[in-house]
Amino acid sequence: MNVVNVDLGENSYPIYIGNNLFVDKQLIHTLLNGSQVMIVTNTTVKPLYLDQLLDQLNEFKVTSIALQDGEQYKTLASVNQIFDELLNQRFSRNATLIALGGGVVGDMTGFAAACYLRGINFIQIPTTLLAQVDSSVGGKTGVNHPLGKNMIGAFYQPQGVFADTSVLHTLPERELMAGVAEVIKYGLIYDIEFLAWLENHVDQILKLEDSALSYAIQRSCEIKAAIVSADEKESGLRAILNLGHTFGHAIEAGCGYGQYLHGEAVAIGMCLALELSHRLQRINLDDVVRGITLIERTGLPSTLPPELTADDFLRLMAVDKKNVDGNIRVIVLNQLGQAALPETVNSGLLRQTINEYGDMRS
Amino acid sequence: MNVVNVDLGENSYPIYIGNNLFVDKQLIHTLLNGSQVMIVTNTTVKPLYLDQLLDQLNEFKVTSIALQDGEQYKTLASVNQIFDELLNQRFSRNATLIALGGGVVGDMTGFAAACYLRGINFIQIPTTLLAQVDSSVGGKTGVNHPLGKNMIGAFYQPQGVFADTSVLHTLPERELMAGVAEVIKYGLIYDIEFLAWLENHVDQILKLEDSALSYAIQRSCEIKAAIVSADEKESGLRAILNLGHTFGHAIEAGCGYGQYLHGEAVAIGMCLALELSHRLQRINLDDVVRGITLIERTGLPSTLPPELTADDFLRLMAVDKKNVDGNIRVIVLNQLGQAALPETVNSGLLRQTINEYGDMRS
Repeated sequence: MNVVNVDLGENSYPIYIGNNLFVDKQLIHTLLNGSQVMIVTNTTVKPLYLDQLLDQLNEFKVTSIALQDGEQYKTLASVNQIFDELLNQRFSRNATLIALGGGVVGDMTGFAAACYLRGINFIQIPTTLLAQVDSSVGGKTGVNHPLGKNMIGAFYQPQGVFADTSVLHTLPERELMAGVAEVIKYGLIYDIEFLAWLENHVDQILKLEDSALSYAIQRSCEIKAAIVSADEKESGLRAILNLGHTFGHAIEAGCGYGQYLHGEAVAIGMCLALELSHRLQRINLDDVVRGITLIERTGLPSTLPPELTADDFLRLMAVDKKNVDGNIRVIVLNQLGQAALPETVNSGLLRQTINEYGDMRS
Repeated sequence: MNVVNVDLGENSYPIYIGNNLFVDKQLIHTLLNGSQVMIVTNTTVKPLYLDQLLDQLNEFKVTSIALQDGEQYKTLASVNQIFDELLNQRFSRNATLIALGGGVVGDMTGFAAACYLRGINFIQIPTTLLAQVDSSVGGKTGVNHPLGKNMIGAFYQPQGVFADTSVLHTLPERELMAGVAEVIKYGLIYDIEFLAWLENHVDQILKLEDSALSYAIQRSCEIKAAIVSADEKESGLRAILNLGHTFGHAIEAGCGYGQYLHGEAVAIGMCLALELSHRLQRINLDDVVRGITLIERTGLPSTLPPELTADDFLRLMAVDKKNVDGNIRVIVLNQLGQAALPETVNSGLLRQTINEYGDMRS
């Protein structure tokens, strides 16, 4: 087992990474300090793992709730179901919530923990690679609103995270690849050595070989933890985690949520960000090819959705939270393994980059 | 104008206390750092003060919303109305919410500010004495749930508070007295000199004489700020703010919310807490009489509701958040001007105290 400590002063917590972790009764018990536990999961994960988790908790007063699976259920109404159950069970301030599921379950459970009695403990057991390397670090919790994604929420840290590689064996391959997109992102923005390691180990990761998978998760969490520790409330450096995301959000919204997985849209977005970085004379063409090649080796998409024009992109990117005074800001690389802070990019150059990249790869 | 600085590290903020403050354009502007402002008020306060406040903000993009007035509207649904309006106006992270109203408006506005985009700025302009001396310090925000009061919320601090004595002239007298109950509480739990000052100035306060009112608010905020600074997240000392509240909550719940104002129920609860402190041999009978006399001089009630038996009290007090392992814990005084931390009190003594106090004063 490996441990990454997320260093946030009095909000610090450990991420345990390894095989068959969440059936390690002793380990889970170290993070529980009251007698009341509520497990929040979804209808897909419940039949796979709930019973195994319950087996570890037979000395506690445990209740569980299975929410509907899917981003469209990431709402205040779902979080209210959690509150209803907590209050029906008369759970008190020293109760603990356990999130057993992907990012949606984690975000809602964390938000419920942040708000119930103004804050109770919670533990994350992410069951997707994306949630293990992304939402398990950073304390972003919350729900969507009909007028925007992740608009309502809180920064709130868990007591600990179990990134259990064994649960990834039941993950659909397409979702595994979507998680790998975020892993590659960490190499691109922060660590060229990790990028090189990924080039040598991407096949083992996709085959779910335990040691490669564990290291990929560990290094991803370390990098995200380093960035988040320096900027817990997202006022500066943390924005570099958005490499590829401004383009990616435009793809998700423009094609309708659900056609592309988040990680797939980000993969395409990172290809565009590499191309843009080159056109800004920050990286050379070999670097662009190197990044895109790695993305393609994982099976992730690298070509633009044919239904989106450059104007569609610009229109959709205009609503991004990073923008200032209506100017589109994106993350580019200063060099491979080092991202720049968000910067305004001339819309003519953006349009040209999208058009020419689209023409090159279609 | 007086200023009380609430010292909470990077979450510190000023409380401005004085006459006609919120028409001091310059002062309000010092607390606003973006161009977008949303005022949250209720249907009672809106016709009294909204236009005056809008006049101070004509250089900003301002929107306002008037929620239904009353504790029964302190719900997630009302907070969602605030979110809807913020998103309809496309308000961004540097927007500011202004709470213009009593404790209910302040609690909901603060909670909306805590959650919108995971946290934006807010300012409080409390329009009741109770909100000025109680909810303006401490950062407790939130809403009720059908299964319990204040069950959903956050600890979240404002950028500043305007405790404007001029707005108290439109406050119903009964609500003014209910606020005075909390002012007396600060003397009882923390400051015998302030208690003596109140004995000399209670008539001026009730006549709304400005200098007495300002000092009463200032000293109350200072005491609460000192307690909260020592214990922001309510793990210890802060519990002494609950003097009279455990009994008071039982009265509010047992008689049906609305029959007694919160401050009235707390006033009766403080009388019981004084009596109990005496029976625990912490204070002498003169101290009990002194406290009860001050409470009665303000016009606040000191006699128990005839419809509640001692058993009713014990049953209702059994659900208090301070209890541990089912044992009722209350706040008593070690001496006049100094409260003790919560302690378990034998239910026989509690029953006897309630019965005999009831017999004495009926």
